[in-house]
Amino acid sequence: MIGSSPSGGETKSMSMGQKSVEIAHLLWDVREKRPLVHNLTNYVTANDCANALLAVGASPVMADELDEASDIAALADAVVINIGTLNARTVLSMFAAGKKAASLGRPVILDPVGAGASRLRTGTAVRLTREIPLAVIRGNVSEIKALLGGVGTTRGVDADERDLSADGLGGVAAAARALALRTGAVVAVTGSTDILTDGSRTLAVRNGHPFMSRITGSGCMLSAVTGAFCGAAPGRVFEAAAAALCMMGLAGEQAAERTAGENAGTGSFRTYLIDSLSLMDEAALAGGMKLERFA
Amino acid sequence: MIGSSPSGGETKSMSMGQKSVEIAHLLWDVREKRPLVHNLTNYVTANDCANALLAVGASPVMADELDEASDIAALADAVVINIGTLNARTVLSMFAAGKKAASLGRPVILDPVGAGASRLRTGTAVRLTREIPLAVIRGNVSEIKALLGGVGTTRGVDADERDLSADGLGGVAAAARALALRTGAVVAVTGSTDILTDGSRTLAVRNGHPFMSRITGSGCMLSAVTGAFCGAAPGRVFEAAAAALCMMGLAGEQAAERTAGENAGTGSFRTYLIDSLSLMDEAALAGGMKLERFA
Amino acid sequence: MIGSSPSGGETKSMSMGQKSVEIAHLLWDVREKRPLVHNLTNYVTANDCANALLAVGASPVMADELDEASDIAALADAVVINIGTLNARTVLSMFAAGKKAASLGRPVILDPVGAGASRLRTGTAVRLTREIPLAVIRGNVSEIKALLGGVGTTRGVDADERDLSADGLGGVAAAARALALRTGAVVAVTGSTDILTDGSRTLAVRNGHPFMSRITGSGCMLSAVTGAFCGAAPGRVFEAAAAALCMMGLAGEQAAERTAGENAGTGSFRTYLIDSLSLMDEAALAGGMKLERFA
Repeated sequence: MIGSSPSGGETKSMSMGQKSVEIAHLLWDVREKRPLVHNLTNYVTANDCANALLAVGASPVMADELDEASDIAALADAVVINIGTLNARTVLSMFAAGKKAASLGRPVILDPVGAGASRLRTGTAVRLTREIPLAVIRGNVSEIKALLGGVGTTRGVDADERDLSADGLGGVAAAARALALRTGAVVAVTGSTDILTDGSRTLAVRNGHPFMSRITGSGCMLSAVTGAFCGAAPGRVFEAAAAALCMMGLAGEQAAERTAGENAGTGSFRTYLIDSLSLMDEAALAGGMKLERFA
Repeated sequence: MIGSSPSGGETKSMSMGQKSVEIAHLLWDVREKRPLVHNLTNYVTANDCANALLAVGASPVMADELDEASDIAALADAVVINIGTLNARTVLSMFAAGKKAASLGRPVILDPVGAGASRLRTGTAVRLTREIPLAVIRGNVSEIKALLGGVGTTRGVDADERDLSADGLGGVAAAARALALRTGAVVAVTGSTDILTDGSRTLAVRNGHPFMSRITGSGCMLSAVTGAFCGAAPGRVFEAAAAALCMMGLAGEQAAERTAGENAGTGSFRTYLIDSLSLMDEAALAGGMKLERFA
Repeated sequence: MIGSSPSGGETKSMSMGQKSVEIAHLLWDVREKRPLVHNLTNYVTANDCANALLAVGASPVMADELDEASDIAALADAVVINIGTLNARTVLSMFAAGKKAASLGRPVILDPVGAGASRLRTGTAVRLTREIPLAVIRGNVSEIKALLGGVGTTRGVDADERDLSADGLGGVAAAARALALRTGAVVAVTGSTDILTDGSRTLAVRNGHPFMSRITGSGCMLSAVTGAFCGAAPGRVFEAAAAALCMMGLAGEQAAERTAGENAGTGSFRTYLIDSLSLMDEAALAGGMKLERFA
């Protein structure tokens, strides 16, 4: 269990001291181990994901051909499956790489981009959750609900506003817990507040900035970085996912502050987000993380 | 008809006041409606296109698999087909998405990247113009001439200098008008001066900066942004295409000024171009657009 | 033979004056000729490669479909084959484009990304070296050793540290020479010091900065830029490859200095690297190149 403060209201502050330091220390593990992260990902944000992985201290490899998918997965410390621009060929490779990694005890992360927006995406994502023992599923609320229900109202690759407002953060957490219990994966649902749960423990992460939704790739980079942390600490995926959520969100805050200070726009913000990931150290991460238990 | 000033020379200033304000106001529509733009596009500039769409206020989705192309197109407010890295698989998806969108009355934009440089590109682009009722075709002069003639001298993805100098801007406008009349689409031909025509009305846009041709993606981003404006105002595609041309060109001017002021290079220019798109408002667009009737 | 200083120690300074000026002058050729460079490349760094090519003064085209690969190659001044995200479809196009270009006497550059990390990559890269008369092979030491041995220990797309430290720069040069003699290609092995050889002449390039390995695409951009120089000077591929190595490394040094001066991170470094390529002139290149004969 992360956090030890007594319950009192829907969310409550963790005893930030020890737990934050422990979680932030995982950044040291990433930089020490330099985990190799195999990405079966989309061509829109592949460059961002590779640079984000390098910025946190991991080593990226992108490879999506069936004939090598399991060879590369066998070398990797973690596999990240992102269905952003899936096709029949690459879906086969996602299954092959995911199964190989799972069979070797390596964490597999799923980013179900656009699940709910087409039968292909929803169906593929649901099958991935059924056939591969996933370490972490990271998506927006519409994608998570699509995985739960097998249908969805995802608007392209963005969350449907109705899914957010329907029943508030409590509803998001309930959906996340249900998916975690069904799949055995840690589930991270990102939005203005992020929810992280393994079905029993649930955290809220209040890092991040609205600018992150004004560039492409924030979610994809988070999923990739989650792969880096899980690859460095495969026995602690819940904490690793928490570290990734906090680090990405805190980098977004820092980048937004710098962007606003220069009266710059979203192009600069994108550059500064990678800058912040590359410059962040454990102390800054521990000090800036906004992590709370969620009742 | 846009513009009302009397004729006098090859080009003449519009009465900038009212018409510019009307066109610039379409930016408000984009930001209010947040149109979902489905891109069947290339992997070289897909990230740029997604960030440009987000910067103007639209929501991008990239999806190129036949099994979901029409599902995604049915959700979208506009479809943008860019043949920059076409292949047999994605060409099928382009036709499926384009036909679906057109059948629902949604605008379809074609960027015939490299038409004229290979039989595959020329043939595919010509077939797209024949089989899909296009709202806008946006290309350089060599690409437009290749679509007209079914052959071309496009140099890779850049215009052949001979196509530009052969008969001046009048020749460009004549080719554009011929293509517009043949296809029923609004045709935008970009170069040092852009030409926009629906076959009867013809405008010249003098926004833009030479730096735009020193980065990849300026043309692709313009086509994507044209999709955003058309998706927000599907009944006014001529004005929407004019707004996109002016906004992209003006953003290029602003970014070039900032780049030059810092003695920076083309990497910074690329970042600042997205910055300018994200920071631009209606007033700046109305005040900066250089739009003229072209006799 | 480049360089004329007498031997004295493992490496020795060239008479920098005349030879550096000659090599740097190739940048003038690139900007004068604007070579069209056809890239069969990966979707992770395709945008970086296109922008790097434009920054040095070349014209990029990416096209990987078999049905047009040889048409585009026939238009191009050089073909660059990068197997970073190879698949069965694009491998066929790589062979078609490479053979077409070679048959027309145009330089073909191979970047064997990740050779050694999977049988698919190693096997494909070895076949490319056997079936296409290559002008230049550019890789890290693990990739080069994999091409020599048909097996390898490449860690994803990064060099295995053991390959670097096993027998020092002398071992790297020996492997490079062996591959050059076997294939007839100029071989460029990049690392903290780069080695360039045609089997008889061997140079060491000491330009570059560790930041270059903290972003994705440094190697891919170098291979693309090598294509630009070779396309501008097809009869002088050894000197062209030397110019590309020095220019990319020097741009990395300049970008690193600017990044450090601003306390910025790897996102800014990536932008500044393109800036430096676009701003560099012959005099700066001649003055900054760190090129030595390697005994």
